[in-house]
Amino acid sequence: MLGCGTVGTQVVRLLLEQSEEFAARAGARLEVTGVAVRDASAPRDQAVPRELLTDDATRVATSNDLVIELIGGIEPARTLILAAFRAGASVITGNKALIAAHGPELYAAAAAAEVDFYYEAAVAGAIPVVYALRESMAGDLVTSVLGIVNGTTNYILDEMSTKGLSFDQALATAQELGYAEADPTADVDGLDAAAKAAIIASLAFHTRVGLDDVTVEGIRSVTAADIREAHASGCEIKLLAIAQRRDDDHARGISVRVHPALVPADHPLASVHGAFNAVLIEAQSAGRLMFYGQGAGGAPTASAVLSDVVAAAAHRVHGGQAPRESSYADLPILGPEAALTRYQVQLRVDDQPGSLAIVAGVFAEHEVSIDSVRQSAYVGGSRAVVTIVTHRAAVAHLEAAVAGLRSEARVLDVVSVQRVEGE
Amino acid sequence: MLGCGTVGTQVVRLLLEQSEEFAARAGARLEVTGVAVRDASAPRDQAVPRELLTDDATRVATSNDLVIELIGGIEPARTLILAAFRAGASVITGNKALIAAHGPELYAAAAAAEVDFYYEAAVAGAIPVVYALRESMAGDLVTSVLGIVNGTTNYILDEMSTKGLSFDQALATAQELGYAEADPTADVDGLDAAAKAAIIASLAFHTRVGLDDVTVEGIRSVTAADIREAHASGCEIKLLAIAQRRDDDHARGISVRVHPALVPADHPLASVHGAFNAVLIEAQSAGRLMFYGQGAGGAPTASAVLSDVVAAAAHRVHGGQAPRESSYADLPILGPEAALTRYQVQLRVDDQPGSLAIVAGVFAEHEVSIDSVRQSAYVGGSRAVVTIVTHRAAVAHLEAAVAGLRSEARVLDVVSVQRVEGE
Repeated sequence: MLGCGTVGTQVVRLLLEQSEEFAARAGARLEVTGVAVRDASAPRDQAVPRELLTDDATRVATSNDLVIELIGGIEPARTLILAAFRAGASVITGNKALIAAHGPELYAAAAAAEVDFYYEAAVAGAIPVVYALRESMAGDLVTSVLGIVNGTTNYILDEMSTKGLSFDQALATAQELGYAEADPTADVDGLDAAAKAAIIASLAFHTRVGLDDVTVEGIRSVTAADIREAHASGCEIKLLAIAQRRDDDHARGISVRVHPALVPADHPLASVHGAFNAVLIEAQSAGRLMFYGQGAGGAPTASAVLSDVVAAAAHRVHGGQAPRESSYADLPILGPEAALTRYQVQLRVDDQPGSLAIVAGVFAEHEVSIDSVRQSAYVGGSRAVVTIVTHRAAVAHLEAAVAGLRSEARVLDVVSVQRVEGE
Repeated sequence: MLGCGTVGTQVVRLLLEQSEEFAARAGARLEVTGVAVRDASAPRDQAVPRELLTDDATRVATSNDLVIELIGGIEPARTLILAAFRAGASVITGNKALIAAHGPELYAAAAAAEVDFYYEAAVAGAIPVVYALRESMAGDLVTSVLGIVNGTTNYILDEMSTKGLSFDQALATAQELGYAEADPTADVDGLDAAAKAAIIASLAFHTRVGLDDVTVEGIRSVTAADIREAHASGCEIKLLAIAQRRDDDHARGISVRVHPALVPADHPLASVHGAFNAVLIEAQSAGRLMFYGQGAGGAPTASAVLSDVVAAAAHRVHGGQAPRESSYADLPILGPEAALTRYQVQLRVDDQPGSLAIVAGVFAEHEVSIDSVRQSAYVGGSRAVVTIVTHRAAVAHLEAAVAGLRSEARVLDVVSVQRVEGE
């Protein structure tokens, strides 16, 4: 094992405590031979026997059948994993950043060495999303994946929603409880979710998708007022990872993005609370599948790592191999302009007969079709707030419609424009 | 392929239409060589080329690399599958009744022939429950599985709940729409769910569990009044398949059962509507995982069959094998008396000071601890209806408490006793 933090400690503890179970399941006894850490003399959980600790990560990586990488980040994880493959080891990792950045290189090295490369723990903890996409969907065509894959941001948004906190207050609570790190950038700016979105899209669409292919927007700009408005519209705000296949008159390829969106309250993703994760896969034959569970934490992540360990070990005993990289479809990766989504547009209008007809006309002119209109509140005098939800529309059409609205005399103000996901 | 009904037709159609995709995923072109049906000259969907049809099932079973069995029932499916294994074929099936009755024999035959035995489609259609239990949980200890695994009964109960229909009315609707068969026994009496519960329990607990080990109660006796009472208690009634591990002072082993139960409205299983399925797995490290999707129907079931086809085909190309039977834990199978569940007990009591204390005393005397008490309605005069929800209790304790209540003068009537699942 390389690295020994919260997850690693649980992995070692379970391998040692339940060694009979693992022997029965893998078909051979699993021996923990070494745990490489930066400082072998630092105090740590006594679940990890001191005699296993070493600071010689290269030796651990190159002298074992199975190597579990839990260091995280790009280097030295990448170099060590490549060394492990060259030395004939199968590798299990939960390193989403590394896979999103160097997945093809790692897959190629594993294939060249004829060993396994497993990474269930990289996406949504113990929820078997990687497996579902790599193997359960092997007989089907995935059309979209919509997921809450970052527990920290879901916790923050849930606190804002249920307790009326501001973003800063909710972030502070999340930090106190250990759900968010002192530097929360990777979570709140959507980078962690983006790495997972890249992995999900690669697997779902049999196409190489890297971190740079993902359009990312985090949750820093979500305000308590936005959440109140969302509630008034019967919605919750969730940070979503979205991987979508387009094959229509206007575009062919895949759109991969991470951004906050309104989700209708009766949609299954709206009721994912706290730090939980959920992933919704839509496929041509299977229809809609949803997976829900704990997306992070030592024990759930260890469960995912250990299922991969058993699979890789069973291959050593009985033959066989993990799925190789599947990139045969090689679909074009579309830019942010190709995202097809619904929008909620709030306007302050002059409340005279005909105002709604004018507004509807502007949307129609720009090929944006309207799903619902709600006159939400009289602001006083002759002004009204109108909330419009559109059907799926292209960004360019929506932006043109909004520009058109701004130039109408009857439209006093465009209050907000938000994306809506989940039908 | 053996049998060619709704699922089989979809399987053939997809294999032919998407043969490039399947070749890329399996590592070799998949050729459909024959489809054995009872009457090769009967009219059928043109998705299945006539020249593939044959009535010689034995030849199909014994002259191919992969055999897909979709006949259903025990014979001739069992004999044909055993013949296929002996002839060196890997077998993919969705036959839950056969596996629940003869699983160990089939596993042994597959192992002897060193071929694969896959059956994802046997439980919950396209939802990868078999995989999740066979492989994702291989690094974890499952403590319980709670599932809605029969779409027909969930459809009926959902119609009763949302439209106030009687059981007979809802059944008739389900039959009209094709959700229930003309003879609905296997569904409404819980036998289909019981076969799935046996499979789930075998995989979850690494122990052989057959249909006879499952305590079964169907939904025929659920009335519209029961559903109204459930709503008054903030619950829905669901037919649940339950596989539970006990390892406490009173019992060690597994309890497997199918019965209707109250589920609190805010529990994820309560919002599973229509013919959808959902399975909730609780495991020591992973915590709670939920899977949700279409549990039946031609296309979703075909998706499950085809994922198994790709896996079995990939093993032919690259080596490796499907997981073998895992029954090493060999836990005792407990009788219905070992089920630990919560109960809701409704009583009509004489509404005088001290009545509640007497009722509470009876529960305490029989070691049944109370979770909540609600005085739900005044029946008139000095009578009140009291609804008590207990913590988890053994059947024997609960029955003794109910007998004790009946013998109390203050208790005028025990109106109902129902199980409550889902916390």
